[in-house]
Amino acid sequence: MSQGPHKDMRYPMDLTRSPLALPFPDMPEIGGVTLRIARARYKDWDRADLTYVELAEGTSVAGVFTRSACPSTEVEMGREQVTIGNARALVVNAGNANAFTGHRGREAVKQIMAQVSTHLGCEPAEVFVSSTGVIGVPLPKDKARAGIAAVLETQPCSWEDAANTIATTDTFAKGAAASAMVGGKRVKLAAIIKGSGMIAPDMATMLGYIFTDAAIAPEFLQHLLSSSNSETFSCITVDSDTSTSDTVLAFATGKAGNAPLTSFDDAGADAFAAALQDICRQLARLVVRDGEGAQKFIEVRITGAMSDESARKIGLSIANSPLVKTAIAGEDANWGRVVMAVGKAGEPADRDKLSIGFGGFWAARDGQPLADYDEAPLAAHLKGSEISVEVDLGIGGGSATVWTCDLTHGYIDINADYRS
Amino acid sequence: MSQGPHKDMRYPMDLTRSPLALPFPDMPEIGGVTLRIARARYKDWDRADLTYVELAEGTSVAGVFTRSACPSTEVEMGREQVTIGNARALVVNAGNANAFTGHRGREAVKQIMAQVSTHLGCEPAEVFVSSTGVIGVPLPKDKARAGIAAVLETQPCSWEDAANTIATTDTFAKGAAASAMVGGKRVKLAAIIKGSGMIAPDMATMLGYIFTDAAIAPEFLQHLLSSSNSETFSCITVDSDTSTSDTVLAFATGKAGNAPLTSFDDAGADAFAAALQDICRQLARLVVRDGEGAQKFIEVRITGAMSDESARKIGLSIANSPLVKTAIAGEDANWGRVVMAVGKAGEPADRDKLSIGFGGFWAARDGQPLADYDEAPLAAHLKGSEISVEVDLGIGGGSATVWTCDLTHGYIDINADYRS
Repeated sequence: MSQGPHKDMRYPMDLTRSPLALPFPDMPEIGGVTLRIARARYKDWDRADLTYVELAEGTSVAGVFTRSACPSTEVEMGREQVTIGNARALVVNAGNANAFTGHRGREAVKQIMAQVSTHLGCEPAEVFVSSTGVIGVPLPKDKARAGIAAVLETQPCSWEDAANTIATTDTFAKGAAASAMVGGKRVKLAAIIKGSGMIAPDMATMLGYIFTDAAIAPEFLQHLLSSSNSETFSCITVDSDTSTSDTVLAFATGKAGNAPLTSFDDAGADAFAAALQDICRQLARLVVRDGEGAQKFIEVRITGAMSDESARKIGLSIANSPLVKTAIAGEDANWGRVVMAVGKAGEPADRDKLSIGFGGFWAARDGQPLADYDEAPLAAHLKGSEISVEVDLGIGGGSATVWTCDLTHGYIDINADYRS
Repeated sequence: MSQGPHKDMRYPMDLTRSPLALPFPDMPEIGGVTLRIARARYKDWDRADLTYVELAEGTSVAGVFTRSACPSTEVEMGREQVTIGNARALVVNAGNANAFTGHRGREAVKQIMAQVSTHLGCEPAEVFVSSTGVIGVPLPKDKARAGIAAVLETQPCSWEDAANTIATTDTFAKGAAASAMVGGKRVKLAAIIKGSGMIAPDMATMLGYIFTDAAIAPEFLQHLLSSSNSETFSCITVDSDTSTSDTVLAFATGKAGNAPLTSFDDAGADAFAAALQDICRQLARLVVRDGEGAQKFIEVRITGAMSDESARKIGLSIANSPLVKTAIAGEDANWGRVVMAVGKAGEPADRDKLSIGFGGFWAARDGQPLADYDEAPLAAHLKGSEISVEVDLGIGGGSATVWTCDLTHGYIDINADYRS
């Protein structure tokens, strides 16, 4: 009998750092948030793979989760927990997604919640658990129990240590910070994220965690997070494959001392919303920068669509097209493939009003190539590592921006060739 | 000024024959159908690139076309022409898709229709035109005019010659044959197709042509073709990218001498419908066998879905998943990625009733791995070149079969790396 479907997969992979990587930023301390890491050894490796975040009493929580019809236990339970709105701890397991593992998987999560809630003297539902890694192998309960016991004894760690510990196939640690003035108080936000794709192979899922010292009611935090999500995490794609485990959680400890935010009528709510959106956009773009095999970061800008939502769908049709992504990998100003991707999107479009460009230079306007089309400036733009694709539908006022990366041999290497 | 967006693309490519290629079959002559080919030199190459098929008076025609919102002129005009129902000729240009070319593209098509209709003494609307190749370059009218003049003077050619002449990035000639007894008469069907993907780069589109000597009313032929399409051409994918030019046309010359078929009440209608469906399935599968970079032919069998259409959508979600396709390329029985693709399909599914297997061996049943899961027989199956993926949703009676190929370095080579 096999120990599981992927026992012989080489892991972690020897992946070189993404050429699009950014340095880990300076990150503020957030009052009421304490980070710790430990080695649970969920895989046969010698690295920290268990992250524990303790949150002050009174912390609000909100979350957005994968819409997969086959979600992990962690996602199912998290969806219920955020409706209560209070959090005291977060546990992230790396190396095992615990998805599609039936009752054994559920028992492992419940055990972690019980162990931590006993330690903190809180409700089990105030302990949030995420897991990322191989699908179809129940999270080993003995390793989880020992790992939790160990992590509760360790010294606090840095944001960068935590960002590295939640990672799987990521090639660099990803963090972001922001701040806002709320009712005369400066509130701070800090966040970490992991992911090399909406899903990436077996063991990469997008997991993002945002922490703030602002005081904010859970319902309003949920509203702002959902709203930010629609223009940030919902606008990125690496490979069109949606994870069973995607999760973004926002925790607000209230330690900044501002009067609690409950609606947009409160002073500083707009500023906080803008800071939250900013940090979500930073995180989303970081995931694309670590897209599997990515050599180029691609921004797709859609204007003139029938609606913003229609623009987003057209943008994602372009960003998910293997032919557009391979053309950009090949530094080919192949705008005909963009026409194709607009045409297949299933959204309103009028071929004879469509305009397409790269890097701010139009190639085609109003349904046909420019009479004096000159490929040179577009070709020069495509040699860079930050690419933009502009599409104007010419039929309405809807717009959207979507981010993706190119499709290269590296993607095939990571997903087909890495068997030991 | 550039001569067009792709003037420097190497073309035709030096592609090696697909390892999944089949020999060209024995094909029957079809009364009332005459094939000819010529060199129009739409690209700077020395190969036949213009195919001309003359059809007997009284030939019925039906067609199915891409649903792209940015279709080629040829597709727009073809959609109108099939509503009339009569055909006398087919012209296929290879090397230029004439898509997204505005009024200049339309003029070129009208010129071809006028030239051929004058020669035959028929209506221009009885002349069908298809073009396949680069998007965004108007079809050169002078080359088309000289090419048509030349082809009308040539000797008839074989099915295989015609199949090679409509090809672009195809690596082998693709044809299929079938027959049926209709009211005591044997009717024959012969067909050719080209395509390496729903679209493939710049210059590959799926174009299929079916010819029969059966007598059949155009409306009934259209009904049967549309019905066959939904279970054949609509069930294949290479890369999820839908062409601006996909076209399948069926021509019926009536030379077999059967009493014309007008509905399923006529003797032999069921047999003819089955033969048409058979030839469409053969053609569809041949396109997948020539999928760009394909090393493995993949059949995805869905059962237990809420409906047949839901099963087809789930099957396509699996068949379009880069992670599933790269796993199969890597001969990895990675059924967790199939779970992911079911989950993201947006169709009804119950994780805890889902079962997944490869090659007839279950890996997971009812939402979790088999207790005695043994990867060995699945791994052995995946080493072959004909792969099956079985998914049982366990929630209804809907089923579908979908065909695709694996995603390999060859796909990246063809679509990103081939610049001269």
